[in-house]
Amino acid sequence: MNIHEYLQDKKHLVDEYLPSFLEQKAIPSHLKEAMLYSLEAGGKRLRPILTLSVLESFGKRAEVGLEAACALEMVHTYSLIHDDLPSMDDDDLRRGKPTNHKMFGEATAILAGDALLTLSFQVIAQSSIYSPDQKVALLSLLAEAAGAEGMVAGQTVDMESENKDLTLEELQFIHERKTGRLLEASVLFGAILANASEADVEQLRSFSRHLGIAFQIQDDILDVMGDPELMGKSAGSDEHNLKSTYPKLLTLGGAKEQLDRHLALSKDNLKMADVDPVILEGIADYIVSRNH
Amino acid sequence: MNIHEYLQDKKHLVDEYLPSFLEQKAIPSHLKEAMLYSLEAGGKRLRPILTLSVLESFGKRAEVGLEAACALEMVHTYSLIHDDLPSMDDDDLRRGKPTNHKMFGEATAILAGDALLTLSFQVIAQSSIYSPDQKVALLSLLAEAAGAEGMVAGQTVDMESENKDLTLEELQFIHERKTGRLLEASVLFGAILANASEADVEQLRSFSRHLGIAFQIQDDILDVMGDPELMGKSAGSDEHNLKSTYPKLLTLGGAKEQLDRHLALSKDNLKMADVDPVILEGIADYIVSRNH
Repeated sequence: MNIHEYLQDKKHLVDEYLPSFLEQKAIPSHLKEAMLYSLEAGGKRLRPILTLSVLESFGKRAEVGLEAACALEMVHTYSLIHDDLPSMDDDDLRRGKPTNHKMFGEATAILAGDALLTLSFQVIAQSSIYSPDQKVALLSLLAEAAGAEGMVAGQTVDMESENKDLTLEELQFIHERKTGRLLEASVLFGAILANASEADVEQLRSFSRHLGIAFQIQDDILDVMGDPELMGKSAGSDEHNLKSTYPKLLTLGGAKEQLDRHLALSKDNLKMADVDPVILEGIADYIVSRNH
Repeated sequence: MNIHEYLQDKKHLVDEYLPSFLEQKAIPSHLKEAMLYSLEAGGKRLRPILTLSVLESFGKRAEVGLEAACALEMVHTYSLIHDDLPSMDDDDLRRGKPTNHKMFGEATAILAGDALLTLSFQVIAQSSIYSPDQKVALLSLLAEAAGAEGMVAGQTVDMESENKDLTLEELQFIHERKTGRLLEASVLFGAILANASEADVEQLRSFSRHLGIAFQIQDDILDVMGDPELMGKSAGSDEHNLKSTYPKLLTLGGAKEQLDRHLALSKDNLKMADVDPVILEGIADYIVSRNH
């Protein structure tokens, strides 16, 4: 299996399916445009792909996970729109394109984010294929990952830490919440929809936690070394903001060591789950070798 | 039954229960404080009270509805926080107190709103007393009422209509979404938790729609005539903003006529449902006679 082709295939599936949730809806045109603008701005679609590939690793059809996977991407997209706002990170560019508020104004950007967050819950609640028990499990997990103890907590502490020197512990606290919880939910979404055993859920949880840390370390390394054109933002921009990063706290070599350690740990946990590990191992390797 | 005592009793119940959803949670302190500040800023608690009183009208215990009712109040509170933001309605005061962003800054206000919206879904999904089917019905309805076709649509069009003369139809389009849908959901939440028949759900839906219009007309009338101290904002502030209101479009007498008409229609629909109508009639009368 060629992992790049696999990722491309699944990305196309998600890219095609994502806008369909807005098509039949009576949404004011300016708002709808703003929601679609950020939903369709691309990105790796890592979260939805994780859900689909976990399903396939359990021998299930990926298509079963499409609604839940798209809900995850909506939450991720909402978080990017709000994080980019002038009162937050004040970013003008995202994935090489003007940020939502630059295109549609601040009020519409806030509302488009609110609407995407809400839609994510609606898509799961109104799925025609998931059982009520599966829906409740997905919605509960999604709310926990996205909310005041998860993603919103991460963004809050990240903002409060601007221009502050963080300890490694503080840095991990932020990343675990800001990106880790939703990545974990993405993996567990696949497990829930595959009706995985408790034991497999716990192995996959550990897999996703180490994967999440590896993902973030690679993100920080790319920011130091990356090609600004591939990154869609200026390389070194985090350092410019005096932001604490893994390379800054551990040196570049130390960060790479930790990256390898967490990659290995994620694979160890994966092997203990009752799944075909090939695709997820491929995705893990891709995450640490990606260049954007 | 004294309706004012009834409303006070239920309001106390909601006031006491609302903060409990945050108590055991590991939420960054500044964020938690901001969430609690707006949740505890008071208000009439009309939405949760509607859920509780519909349950009692079906002969069920109000306490059964507390979790769902508090979720509605969280969504209402989030919408007020975001509506007040500088890029939206730019309000400094809400219920006579500084708005959330005035107290905690714009970024935290946005995040507190995001967190309350997310928590509302979590509270329902993680309820220990609702069945999975009830949870899915509640979550689906809540997302529809709050989202891009509901409350967010209403706020979007309301903002686009600033300083514009609206037709009565346009004004109703906005109100139906901005406040109507969540009021309707509040009534239907009670029906769902009482396991009401399809027929009763439809009667209560009509009841709530007319009640919602009556509520909004009274809001507009109060803005023209109300006591600024009771209102917590300056009387005439909507007119000052050149905002279209029912009295402006229909004259004050015409608005009062429509108020009476919708109140009567709401009661007619209520009588056709298989419920004890006394409390809900009392609430409807309260809504049109309230002075803030």
